[in-house]
Amino acid sequence: MTNQTADTTGNIDERCINTIRTLSIDGVQKANSGHPGAPMGLAPAAYVLWTRAMQHNPENPDWFNRDRFVLSGGHASMLIYSMLHLTGYDLSLDDLKNFRQAGSKTPGHPEYGHTPGVETTTGPLGQGFANAVGMAMAERHLAAVYNKPDCEVIDHYTYVMCGDGDMMEGITAEAASLAGHLALSRLTCIYDDNQISIEGSTDIAFTEDVGQRFSAYKWHVVKVADGNDPEAIHKALNAARAEKERPTLIMLRTQIAYGSPNKQGTADAHGAPLGEEEIRLTKKYLGMPDKPFYIPEEALAHMRACVEAGKSAEAEWVSRLSAFEEKYPEEAERLKGAINRALPQGWDADLDDLRRIEGPVATRAASGKVLNAIAANVSALIGGSADLAPSNKTYIDASHDFQKGAYDGRNIHFGVREHAMGSIMSGMVLHKGVRSYGGTFFVFTDYLRPAIRLACLMKLPVIYVFTHDSIAVGEDGPTHQPVEHLAALRSIPGMTVIRPADMSETVEAWRLAMQMETPVALILSRQKLPVLKEGTHGNPADLAQGAYIVADTDGIPDMVLIATGAEVHITLEAAEKLKSEGVAARVVSMPSWELFEAAPREYRDRILPSGITARIAVEAGSDMGWQRYTGQNGLTITMTGYGASAPGGTNMEQNGFTVDNIVKTALKVTKVS
Amino acid sequence: MTNQTADTTGNIDERCINTIRTLSIDGVQKANSGHPGAPMGLAPAAYVLWTRAMQHNPENPDWFNRDRFVLSGGHASMLIYSMLHLTGYDLSLDDLKNFRQAGSKTPGHPEYGHTPGVETTTGPLGQGFANAVGMAMAERHLAAVYNKPDCEVIDHYTYVMCGDGDMMEGITAEAASLAGHLALSRLTCIYDDNQISIEGSTDIAFTEDVGQRFSAYKWHVVKVADGNDPEAIHKALNAARAEKERPTLIMLRTQIAYGSPNKQGTADAHGAPLGEEEIRLTKKYLGMPDKPFYIPEEALAHMRACVEAGKSAEAEWVSRLSAFEEKYPEEAERLKGAINRALPQGWDADLDDLRRIEGPVATRAASGKVLNAIAANVSALIGGSADLAPSNKTYIDASHDFQKGAYDGRNIHFGVREHAMGSIMSGMVLHKGVRSYGGTFFVFTDYLRPAIRLACLMKLPVIYVFTHDSIAVGEDGPTHQPVEHLAALRSIPGMTVIRPADMSETVEAWRLAMQMETPVALILSRQKLPVLKEGTHGNPADLAQGAYIVADTDGIPDMVLIATGAEVHITLEAAEKLKSEGVAARVVSMPSWELFEAAPREYRDRILPSGITARIAVEAGSDMGWQRYTGQNGLTITMTGYGASAPGGTNMEQNGFTVDNIVKTALKVTKVS
Repeated sequence: MTNQTADTTGNIDERCINTIRTLSIDGVQKANSGHPGAPMGLAPAAYVLWTRAMQHNPENPDWFNRDRFVLSGGHASMLIYSMLHLTGYDLSLDDLKNFRQAGSKTPGHPEYGHTPGVETTTGPLGQGFANAVGMAMAERHLAAVYNKPDCEVIDHYTYVMCGDGDMMEGITAEAASLAGHLALSRLTCIYDDNQISIEGSTDIAFTEDVGQRFSAYKWHVVKVADGNDPEAIHKALNAARAEKERPTLIMLRTQIAYGSPNKQGTADAHGAPLGEEEIRLTKKYLGMPDKPFYIPEEALAHMRACVEAGKSAEAEWVSRLSAFEEKYPEEAERLKGAINRALPQGWDADLDDLRRIEGPVATRAASGKVLNAIAANVSALIGGSADLAPSNKTYIDASHDFQKGAYDGRNIHFGVREHAMGSIMSGMVLHKGVRSYGGTFFVFTDYLRPAIRLACLMKLPVIYVFTHDSIAVGEDGPTHQPVEHLAALRSIPGMTVIRPADMSETVEAWRLAMQMETPVALILSRQKLPVLKEGTHGNPADLAQGAYIVADTDGIPDMVLIATGAEVHITLEAAEKLKSEGVAARVVSMPSWELFEAAPREYRDRILPSGITARIAVEAGSDMGWQRYTGQNGLTITMTGYGASAPGGTNMEQNGFTVDNIVKTALKVTKVS
Repeated sequence: MTNQTADTTGNIDERCINTIRTLSIDGVQKANSGHPGAPMGLAPAAYVLWTRAMQHNPENPDWFNRDRFVLSGGHASMLIYSMLHLTGYDLSLDDLKNFRQAGSKTPGHPEYGHTPGVETTTGPLGQGFANAVGMAMAERHLAAVYNKPDCEVIDHYTYVMCGDGDMMEGITAEAASLAGHLALSRLTCIYDDNQISIEGSTDIAFTEDVGQRFSAYKWHVVKVADGNDPEAIHKALNAARAEKERPTLIMLRTQIAYGSPNKQGTADAHGAPLGEEEIRLTKKYLGMPDKPFYIPEEALAHMRACVEAGKSAEAEWVSRLSAFEEKYPEEAERLKGAINRALPQGWDADLDDLRRIEGPVATRAASGKVLNAIAANVSALIGGSADLAPSNKTYIDASHDFQKGAYDGRNIHFGVREHAMGSIMSGMVLHKGVRSYGGTFFVFTDYLRPAIRLACLMKLPVIYVFTHDSIAVGEDGPTHQPVEHLAALRSIPGMTVIRPADMSETVEAWRLAMQMETPVALILSRQKLPVLKEGTHGNPADLAQGAYIVADTDGIPDMVLIATGAEVHITLEAAEKLKSEGVAARVVSMPSWELFEAAPREYRDRILPSGITARIAVEAGSDMGWQRYTGQNGLTITMTGYGASAPGGTNMEQNGFTVDNIVKTALKVTKVS
């Protein structure tokens, strides 16, 4: 480690770095909660990155061509808050003093949309790394689509800081392998190689050769032996920038809680305040006065130079953009629209024709047709599948693969990496300029659930295409048959789940998803389904209200049958049969609970009149939550356990998803009521 | 590739291998569904492994010291079914002909407990690999605990076959890194390096150097250039066996659908039947007669030699075991008990004292005490945490770390690898001889959800220790605060979720979990909680019924307040306050929905009388599913969105988890009813 007092690289660097350290430990101490160790070890790297390498404008955190910075180990949040304040973002010293308090701009882990300059919400390990890969992919895509040989308007870099925890997570492995494959040379990961995790030294669980692993992923690996040496860090960052073929991993040997005489290099410093006495000793060691939240004037002035540098960097870009607008007005217009998530005029003009297609058609196939019809008009739409494109029907036929040397392609091969796919989709949307979608089997939502949750928390407009939606999947058996997944997805706050019943509802589901500003999951069938007849079966556009009547009775119904997806069709048949039994049953197609809950009360009461308590819900999934709609007198025809390996039709029959069983259950309910 | 007609290694091998291939393609063809390609490419490896390397007894698939075999790419199920039939397991040719049909012993993906010789349920990629790591860990642990210098009773190997999909999954990366760290030299992975996945060549998404990656994990990497060469495969397996320091990865260069003139080496052969004409051509190429399910007599005889070999291998072990029993009767008894999951006499004798501890105590801390009290008596209990042991309170103080050179330790450092931890826990339990538990923050159940689902599907008695159970986590913020996780876990068929309210319920939760034969998740508080008073607050042992009365009224209650976990205490206070408002409220602690559903109807009706419809559920989680218990007139005090970074108490208040809000809501409900 560099000797702090004999530092020959200039005192101002040291002063700034120690200011970052002391602000961070003071924030944690005041909150009496948080993680001081990582910011202390990473302060030199953050300092060099933000003041010498990164192009950013503290006065305009939304400048589109800024370099992106992601703190994947989000627990080190005081590091980014210190940097934001010191380099001049809209984050005051009082904000830092309010670290982790209710309503503050400085939550325990960085939260997107909450603090200016925070590019993504991190904390659950590995997510930030994969987000960064998504950002770097979006950057390369936009560069390939929009840059001209005489005018480059997109040319920024993505930086991500990771700790040992991030490196142990599987999602990081997935995303790193894909980033290497895609040769994302503008992506740099600074790995805080401090050899400490919560349970102690990484020796107890993590002794792999991280550098060799990343070399195997086709990354450029640079080692910095002294994480306190600003010049060495700067040199590594320059090497990363010079590398044109591979993403770069900078392995930075640091010491957790650097400067703390008694806690440096120990797990104790990871997740608890240092304590007042230790802070005193630390400040003494670092040559800083014993005052809380003290910022030396010269350090602040030095780091606030980022404001001027940022302004002129942005100004330079704005002039480039002006030239671009002049020469290529159409492209410039398109780019602006993409950045603002504008949908081009007539983007959904081809959808009405699709609604009229004769069935039967699987909703996954329907989705494929709709996706292609939309993609033809919305060039910002880019996505793919976790190696299931032929099954998920997620391929955009009018485009080609997104690959090294062909970043303008709009079809991403994520590989069998569902988890990374989820976070990459989020990263792309966070970057802006693109709209992302991604597909896998519905049962495998389990694999990307942490990414889905963060997308919901951040309110990101991603579109998940989940096919093979029930035990009707058939022969692949229970490992491939979703049961609890509808309930599990619906339980995530902020998620909109839509399970369309047919081609026409699939059209409307996509139409809606494209206009929403929060995550949408489309849940689609493997098997073919009839197409509902507009007029006879209501108006599929009412899907936007979450539920609508697809078959009604002449007078007041005796009962309401509620179904979703494939089960709508057998429910319609059952209602027909019930008529001959003297039971007047309304059938409600309810593709989305969340949309229904958001519909006006009057509409909801009209669809499900409170007076009609004889109700049955029919859905080939868990009954969890259906009681909300079926009430005390109602029943559910749902799954009680797992499916089995057998033809899909057999599975459906054996689990009660038959016209006869619906009729039988309906007769039971109407008698009870 | 070896020229089939000029094979010098002996025709019988070739004959057997081609029989495996043709049985596999015939099975898929008859089912008109399935995956023929991988079995055709892997047939030589499976043949050599099962007939020359693996110690197994087809007549006793439960022989404890057998080598374990896991087909991680479970879609290649016809490979294992063909092997099981050909080597003499209880799986008939008719079973093979019933592939993927309802009620057959040959489901689409291998299912544990369904087919003799299938060691685990696979299909969701990467799970089998991590299960195998768990099995190898269990083997090393038992060997370290029980083997004597003069008598080794545990010394088997674990083999796992993986495809490119497995290799791309993050869970495989996590588990491989841990296996390398732990130096599990008796673990061998055969990697089906066929360079094809569903979307096409692995070139499109997966170009990393897998061998180098595994070297970085500290694995021994052996390459076999010709996956059709039995001698090369045998040599590689011998090299794996000779390696004493590292697990071995055998990279087997194969061709998907080997032998199919038109589909070999293409993605087409992955997941669809070859078709009758292609099967004819394939059989012709392989020199096999054009008859479905044809097994040459000499091939069957040759492979059935496994029966005699297996019997004598087991006999040799039985005599070793006898010697062990004679010399070390106590250890032998203990081993037998561990294998049979017997709980030693008085195993829970120390728990009653713990129930009497004075509060307040966080249920995570309570869990730590109970775990230690049980672990002292149940030596088969082994587990750990995904790098959160100090927070999850999962450390067994009386033991040491499970590490290379100290495999007898019972504290596993899983690292920040939640997903691998989940599947490893399952693998250990599948192995038998140990009981496994594992901890992480409750919010991170999302990371191991695929593993949890398979444990539930397989009905494995694993114990999950999930701490930091709600927004009361506080300052760490919404990324660390579970909201939807109770609903999401409860929705998985076969899972038992228990959220104890205090120390005494935690004691009973562990006591029950130890006796259950299916997965149990303990959901524990970060914050301290009062201890319920036995007698005054009912009997915590009634937790076994899922719910019980902790405060009742003198006459018939006006209403029922139902709460779980930490919220039981404020609900008790609210009931007290309601009394002064003239409302007689019963308070029910409902630590487990699943246990309550399993309780006798009479008991359930007694706790929640149908006549009392004024009900409120209080739980700091999503309301999803609570309507089942609160009914049409009831209300819920639950979470409607995410929490925030703020002190836990503030969060609870701001989201309505206060005595006053319960009282207010109760008054509303009683007026409405």
